[in-house]
Amino acid sequence: MKTIHIIKIGGNIIDDEKKLNKFLKDLSILKGKKILVHGGGKLATQLSEKLGIQTQMVDGRRITDAETLKVATMVYAGWINKRIVAKLNTEKQNAIGLCGADLHLIISEKRKKGKVDYGFVGDPVQAHVKGKILYEMLEKNYLPVVSPITMSKQGQLLNTNADTIASSLAISLSKYAKTKLIYCFEKKGVLNKEKVVSKINKKIYSELLKEKIVTDGMIPKLDNAFSAIDLGVSEVIIGNASSIKKLSESKDGTSITK
Amino acid sequence: MKTIHIIKIGGNIIDDEKKLNKFLKDLSILKGKKILVHGGGKLATQLSEKLGIQTQMVDGRRITDAETLKVATMVYAGWINKRIVAKLNTEKQNAIGLCGADLHLIISEKRKKGKVDYGFVGDPVQAHVKGKILYEMLEKNYLPVVSPITMSKQGQLLNTNADTIASSLAISLSKYAKTKLIYCFEKKGVLNKEKVVSKINKKIYSELLKEKIVTDGMIPKLDNAFSAIDLGVSEVIIGNASSIKKLSESKDGTSITK
Repeated sequence: MKTIHIIKIGGNIIDDEKKLNKFLKDLSILKGKKILVHGGGKLATQLSEKLGIQTQMVDGRRITDAETLKVATMVYAGWINKRIVAKLNTEKQNAIGLCGADLHLIISEKRKKGKVDYGFVGDPVQAHVKGKILYEMLEKNYLPVVSPITMSKQGQLLNTNADTIASSLAISLSKYAKTKLIYCFEKKGVLNKEKVVSKINKKIYSELLKEKIVTDGMIPKLDNAFSAIDLGVSEVIIGNASSIKKLSESKDGTSITK
Repeated sequence: MKTIHIIKIGGNIIDDEKKLNKFLKDLSILKGKKILVHGGGKLATQLSEKLGIQTQMVDGRRITDAETLKVATMVYAGWINKRIVAKLNTEKQNAIGLCGADLHLIISEKRKKGKVDYGFVGDPVQAHVKGKILYEMLEKNYLPVVSPITMSKQGQLLNTNADTIASSLAISLSKYAKTKLIYCFEKKGVLNKEKVVSKINKKIYSELLKEKIVTDGMIPKLDNAFSAIDLGVSEVIIGNASSIKKLSESKDGTSITK
């Protein structure tokens, strides 16, 4: 099998019907094997508000109590996932919506209580991420669409970071084929004075850090990208969803390699 | 492949955590190939009420407006479906949650406006029900868990009767293997003076109708059962979920054959 593209989209696309429709059309005409991982967006927070569930946030992270988990599962694995599947399938794709509980795809561990109890939040256990299942689906020309809900060994559904889902699937799939992990976000890539840095390797990264060109929220993103690469992923691309075709060809965004 | 069991459970089990857990444990130890179709239960109505969406009913049927469709998709394809999948997978099953939109599994037609406009409600188009997909999953020892949301050719998600989903899947699967369709409901089967009628064929059915032993809501159930049989299903069983093992062996409930 040629390169598998694992593409992650976040709330900024999901919350915007027009952007989402355009992205899904663009995705449909991309050649080659692909997997879509989607995040949540504002819908879950909006639904929680309507239901009078208070969203607790600590350090920018949502605390997932039992009611919030129910909302997250309904919105992510239900409404968003199946709507994306239906849209892709009218574009002649063969999309199948999955979460980590399906076929034991992503077994995660409930995050331990430290200073903060995040509640029903799970972190994937890499040894129990079953890329092989997705590989077999890709062989059948299925397009897996994965929502950020996983399950513990004990069968507890858990809210999980979509970036992590994408990287853990990409790492697992690297055993079977070359993988390229594409993170779509609102910016055009890693920026240096408003210009996109087109290539970053570890050496360049340490320079960008020294010169304080890479700061704040971009640091964990790049750290994650490099650990994915260390664990087998060939290339990580960070860029804007509006140019998904170019991103998939490494002709836009920031390309991260060893 | 030996007989495929297509088992449909309704709200009376889904709404009762204890009953549901017992049923899923029983289902897990059933030998042979099986597919679970689940209905909705009270959860969707409860959520609609909390959100201030008025549930419109006509002749005992819910009218599905845009907001109700969203709730139905979230509850059926999201919360109920993934919770059942997680529970089955802790019982060493290999369950995969699906709705009709996934892989174009069940393409339905939006119900035409007659005296009543049911809104976003769909009826499966038998020629576009793809039992083959489920057959291939059963060959891989997957346990498909199907929620009652389907999709039109145009990609519109549609609320669909779960009994109809079960029978249309069973009919389609009959092309590939012997199929047994099991409807679980609150009673022990078709009753004649509180005793279960163990076997019904077309001749017996016409007698039961004449003697007014079969009346009201049981008539459409049996009519549907006979049309499934006319279209290739080997046997239809109607009975109580608490004895699913016996039902699957045709040792309990009412067995309907040609």
